[in-house]
Amino acid sequence: MKIIKIGGGKDINLPGIISDLARMNEQFIIVHGANAIRDEIAEKMDKPNKILKSLSGYSSVYSDDDAIDIIMMAYAGLQNKRIVELCQQKGINAVGLTGLDGRTVQGVRNPGIRIEEGKKIKIIRDNSGKPKSVNKDFLNLLLSNGYFPVIAIPIIDENGKAINTENDEIVRVLHESLESEMIIQLIEALGFLDDPDNPASLVNTMTVNEIEKREEQVEGRMKRKMLALKKLFESRKVKVIISDGRVENPIENALAGKGTTIS
Amino acid sequence: MKIIKIGGGKDINLPGIISDLARMNEQFIIVHGANAIRDEIAEKMDKPNKILKSLSGYSSVYSDDDAIDIIMMAYAGLQNKRIVELCQQKGINAVGLTGLDGRTVQGVRNPGIRIEEGKKIKIIRDNSGKPKSVNKDFLNLLLSNGYFPVIAIPIIDENGKAINTENDEIVRVLHESLESEMIIQLIEALGFLDDPDNPASLVNTMTVNEIEKREEQVEGRMKRKMLALKKLFESRKVKVIISDGRVENPIENALAGKGTTIS
Repeated sequence: MKIIKIGGGKDINLPGIISDLARMNEQFIIVHGANAIRDEIAEKMDKPNKILKSLSGYSSVYSDDDAIDIIMMAYAGLQNKRIVELCQQKGINAVGLTGLDGRTVQGVRNPGIRIEEGKKIKIIRDNSGKPKSVNKDFLNLLLSNGYFPVIAIPIIDENGKAINTENDEIVRVLHESLESEMIIQLIEALGFLDDPDNPASLVNTMTVNEIEKREEQVEGRMKRKMLALKKLFESRKVKVIISDGRVENPIENALAGKGTTIS
Repeated sequence: MKIIKIGGGKDINLPGIISDLARMNEQFIIVHGANAIRDEIAEKMDKPNKILKSLSGYSSVYSDDDAIDIIMMAYAGLQNKRIVELCQQKGINAVGLTGLDGRTVQGVRNPGIRIEEGKKIKIIRDNSGKPKSVNKDFLNLLLSNGYFPVIAIPIIDENGKAINTENDEIVRVLHESLESEMIIQLIEALGFLDDPDNPASLVNTMTVNEIEKREEQVEGRMKRKMLALKKLFESRKVKVIISDGRVENPIENALAGKGTTIS
């Protein structure tokens, strides 16, 4: 079984990915983002992302109830259903799910962020957290009956509430539970670049031992991705391919080794 | 098995409905609307409903690609996931589905509407149609494993495309296929009123033979509802309760006979 993680950037070639998957004739689960659509909807609905800065200087998105509404519209709604529609048109009997549906992805809400408000220190708790387990029985029920899960945020917390989380973390708990043999991550880049500004610096293969060194080398989202990868390999053996989601045949391209392969 | 049709008006008491269902301890399928949220999102996204007037003088919503996007955000996204979340909080293991997911509700696209454009007569085809069948195996797989389907538009057409349709029609094909013994329709009114402006004129019981007479008596959405009811009873025996979705305990209220019961 393969896990296909599809980035939420606007240049990701969704029809190409789904056409490739339809030809693959193998079980898979999709985990997808929708950040480009999310930002567009949030702006038009006049509910922009709110950023909190913690006392320790770390910035993070503040997932209030409005933010969860927007996630439901963008991830669970528009992006998920357009992907399911593409799948159906190519003969893949997809079922779109958030972590809430069938308790597919269960998590724990974050304890809160310490922030400074005037002269007071305040702890703010939002609707975000970390996935801890998946409903393996439900996913196997779907897969063994010919249905292909297409998963998006939000996930469900310990009190049954919808929370935001990182897709890399969802992929990790899915992999731990379902023992996928391969994870393909499709992003808006060629793969892992030694120099982010130079496409020619693509790192074609990376060993597990190298991940830590690479993590120190990069910033922002790619740093978080490296951290998630490190945790992924701690749990179970797997082959990970980080590859370009913008090309004509993103899955074939990835399987042909034209990205960064980590094993 | 019961089918619970929940109207999409803003005053529908969703937490009350879900609390009632959690106490009911019985199999059910929810079919829900989201028109209040849809209109709000459409307005803010600056994509208002477009109305077409056919040559025969009949007005209908024009479901272009933008309209399907908005349906995906409002019905499949925000409203569906908030209902699933409420279910999970009350211990109901709900799975939200559109007709696309698992090909749950399959339909046929409408042939087109004849309109006058200048001096020409044009046929316009939009993304709307009629449901013809449901994926009974999939719904039974979910129900028999303890999952409760929560269904919203869009449905899937003969070419795998997402199309808009009427929830009353979805309820009818579900009922035909799954042989529900009762259909509860929760709306923003006491039930069927003899005089729409007088709540005291609630019609408490209606026979199947009366439906046709009532259909001639009413206008707009209620007329369409009566027409759908007539077709519903043509297919199979059932008890239908049209009742108030705004009260504290909408399901208990309906089961106590405080609406319009048709059988």
